[in-house]
Amino acid sequence: MSNAKLKIAQKLKLKKYRAELNLFTAEGLRLCEMVNPSQIEFGFFTAEFLKSPRQIKLIERLKNFAQMYEIPAATFAKISDTETPQGIMLIVRQKISTPEEILTKKIIVALDAVHDAGNLGTILRTAEAFGCGMAVLEDSADIFNPKVVRASMGAIFNLPIVKLSWLKFLELMKSAGVEILAAALDSTAEIYFEHNFTGKSAIIFGSEAEGVSAEILRAAKKIYIPMSGRAESLNVAQAAAIIISEAVRQNFS
Amino acid sequence: MSNAKLKIAQKLKLKKYRAELNLFTAEGLRLCEMVNPSQIEFGFFTAEFLKSPRQIKLIERLKNFAQMYEIPAATFAKISDTETPQGIMLIVRQKISTPEEILTKKIIVALDAVHDAGNLGTILRTAEAFGCGMAVLEDSADIFNPKVVRASMGAIFNLPIVKLSWLKFLELMKSAGVEILAAALDSTAEIYFEHNFTGKSAIIFGSEAEGVSAEILRAAKKIYIPMSGRAESLNVAQAAAIIISEAVRQNFS
Repeated sequence: MSNAKLKIAQKLKLKKYRAELNLFTAEGLRLCEMVNPSQIEFGFFTAEFLKSPRQIKLIERLKNFAQMYEIPAATFAKISDTETPQGIMLIVRQKISTPEEILTKKIIVALDAVHDAGNLGTILRTAEAFGCGMAVLEDSADIFNPKVVRASMGAIFNLPIVKLSWLKFLELMKSAGVEILAAALDSTAEIYFEHNFTGKSAIIFGSEAEGVSAEILRAAKKIYIPMSGRAESLNVAQAAAIIISEAVRQNFS
Repeated sequence: MSNAKLKIAQKLKLKKYRAELNLFTAEGLRLCEMVNPSQIEFGFFTAEFLKSPRQIKLIERLKNFAQMYEIPAATFAKISDTETPQGIMLIVRQKISTPEEILTKKIIVALDAVHDAGNLGTILRTAEAFGCGMAVLEDSADIFNPKVVRASMGAIFNLPIVKLSWLKFLELMKSAGVEILAAALDSTAEIYFEHNFTGKSAIIFGSEAEGVSAEILRAAKKIYIPMSGRAESLNVAQAAAIIISEAVRQNFS
């Protein structure tokens, strides 16, 4: 087995190399079962992974599409991003959608500087579950970070996603006649469920610490979630789930 | 400083000792600012923590309520649950509500075997933000686990929570005339937003892998979230946020 391939897997732990090589890693049985075969470059597995019919079948199937290298568990542990690796990893080509593709969706979810990989992946999963399009604005975590990929539970393979600057994003939404909304705790904001979501809308969520940035807020209609508790506002992924599901509910037929 | 106090902090990393001593730990500036002073047993801080007026003020205030021990950063790192400790930890008495207290709430959120500490903490935070009561059924993660406490963002101090067996929980809800609902993907389930939440209701969420257990499902009305995506269902905390917020929306006045 070529040592160069292992070096690539190792390098892909860093955002810099993921961007340079246009690749990322997917680890674990369920995630690897969901990868679109045409995106696979090559993969690794351990002898220990071949312990069940389902796992053996997956390796057999993957061998039809790409070179699959069997490597020792100790070697696998070095390229793995998890503490208890399952023993399967695919090296996958990054796939980004076109703006036209996300504009076919009724609801576009946009993230402004969401740095937490777990939250980002969870929002990808929810956006995919509800058939939304996604725009990840500059300064958010890398959507191809292994933690994001894992938390997305495969949504990364199916969800239409674009990466844009906030300026380009706003231009794009305005020129397409999409209503721009931002989740914000603000005295001028409308209660989210009193907003009419039956038109096409883009809903922007910001980081928990900072919120949506001032430049974007100026161009957006603000909506908020009324709360009664004493704890600090909701987790950003929870806020996204609440607002996205309400938008979907209003459009349900 | 008494070494015995450090030993207690160390022991509280384990569920067994948290239950035995009826204590748990709260770490970090924001969390420690939210602790009810009457629940504090004692605390630790490092000299490095005293770097801003806000942090100095917190230590001064805490000294009015409990013994606060200054310890070296290296010692603090040993008792800390985080990789980059902030340098403040409080040892706090566990507080559990009475069933009567949670029954005063219109919406009671119940968790059946939710093992993931991050999800559990996130659900506590959301339940508190929406003014719900909470029942954590046997087999769920310990609500006083440091990771749960952290993800709850202080909700653990304000949210009325009871710990019950599922059997006792069902009895309690039935005798109080509370409608029992369970989130379940099932052909007999009702779409969550078509359910009428204007009565008093208990909504049960299960683990992502297993769902709500069969015994509970038999006693519950099933509700589900319709989804269009190809990824596997929603994260349990996301599902909880969606259903809780809809119940709150229907009761909004």
